[in-house]
Amino acid sequence: MMIGRHLWAMAEAYIPGEGIKGDPTLVSHETACILNTQNADAHLPITIYLADRESAGTYHVIVPARRTMHARFNGLDDPETVPRDTDFASGIKSYHPVDVQHTRLDSRHPDMALLSTIAFLGECE
Amino acid sequence: MMIGRHLWAMAEAYIPGEGIKGDPTLVSHETACILNTQNADAHLPITIYLADRESAGTYHVIVPARRTMHARFNGLDDPETVPRDTDFASGIKSYHPVDVQHTRLDSRHPDMALLSTIAFLGECE
Amino acid sequence: MMIGRHLWAMAEAYIPGEGIKGDPTLVSHETACILNTQNADAHLPITIYLADRESAGTYHVIVPARRTMHARFNGLDDPETVPRDTDFASGIKSYHPVDVQHTRLDSRHPDMALLSTIAFLGECE
Amino acid sequence: MMIGRHLWAMAEAYIPGEGIKGDPTLVSHETACILNTQNADAHLPITIYLADRESAGTYHVIVPARRTMHARFNGLDDPETVPRDTDFASGIKSYHPVDVQHTRLDSRHPDMALLSTIAFLGECE
Repeated sequence: MMIGRHLWAMAEAYIPGEGIKGDPTLVSHETACILNTQNADAHLPITIYLADRESAGTYHVIVPARRTMHARFNGLDDPETVPRDTDFASGIKSYHPVDVQHTRLDSRHPDMALLSTIAFLGECE
Repeated sequence: MMIGRHLWAMAEAYIPGEGIKGDPTLVSHETACILNTQNADAHLPITIYLADRESAGTYHVIVPARRTMHARFNGLDDPETVPRDTDFASGIKSYHPVDVQHTRLDSRHPDMALLSTIAFLGECE
Repeated sequence: MMIGRHLWAMAEAYIPGEGIKGDPTLVSHETACILNTQNADAHLPITIYLADRESAGTYHVIVPARRTMHARFNGLDDPETVPRDTDFASGIKSYHPVDVQHTRLDSRHPDMALLSTIAFLGECE
Repeated sequence: MMIGRHLWAMAEAYIPGEGIKGDPTLVSHETACILNTQNADAHLPITIYLADRESAGTYHVIVPARRTMHARFNGLDDPETVPRDTDFASGIKSYHPVDVQHTRLDSRHPDMALLSTIAFLGECE
């Protein structure tokens, strides 16, 4: 089973600086979940786009063959830490086709609910 | 890396009039997150569709070259404020290809959970 | 701006029977958000698929020209009420192209968080 | 109405080991919601991908003709139980076209909000 594409984008991203502390599974985090169903490791250059300055990166992530990696943007720190409490977006390339899903856990406040989806890609008819 | 499309739609939108006050990051809001990976600014006309009257707009948003903008519908007020507590939808055009993701934060009530996704675009086989 | 497709499906649907009472905006609900950017009304036959019996419907929804309708499954009752606390799915047809987005608000419990997305449509390469 | 594809992937999956106990509708769960609009049963082999070892499975799910099944990964136990508190991903094949949507309910903590979407599938222009 070989599934995937070579180029992905996530227009939405935000790492809340606040939230539950201690348990890493409950800390506010922003994640690019990557699935590599291929028989070769996938090397992924990631670019971070910001609102008010030039893009950051290139970051490099390697997803081994036939593995998934739920890569937290919280942990990316080379060439620089991804800023907290800041709107950003990302672009991901891969020579081998991969599947990418975007997930955020925000544990700042009990009254908060979130939804997100890519918009519909319209086509003129 | 050049990523995007020229025409986008979000069938779902709703700005809750209530919610947490004070901290703008926790105020209920409705957002079109736009990523422009191109080397030219993207000028985006936005149309708001409503349930019971003619569409509103055209609103105009500019996303600079190689930047992201998380544009809150809460802040659109020219030619008119986007109504609160009202179902709406939106269509976005762009001469340069962009990527658009829809996100809402609703801070009205602790008991509330939300999910959303574009539906599957079926094709007859 | 003419945006849309003629055939849509939502594999996920569930109307919680419990939740906040009184305020209709906070009552647990399941919604098909439909955007009709065309200059003609869109007539949509909707079929409900269930886990353990034949499909229900056909339900009929009309979205006027250049309007959005956030159609709650809670309110569909002809030819029969959509069951509560029951897994279902839906298929939507439209002669005129429309855009469809799926949203649920679940107000049963403060400890609950939800996420949902269509899965990635894999292609063999 | 015949809707669907033959190959699906969900890069994100996680079954929280904690959460509300007792009421099965509120227990933390991870679900592949499958819609089979065809007139024949759909036999789906499912492969689970993990972060640090070879994939698990093949699991087998059957969705009857003209039915939906909201298949919880919590209940898959042949050939092995799907691990809790562990990042995973999944690939789903189907000889007959089906529609797949990914949903999680996480009932671990009142302060938590979640969002998720497939990323945008970029194309070079």
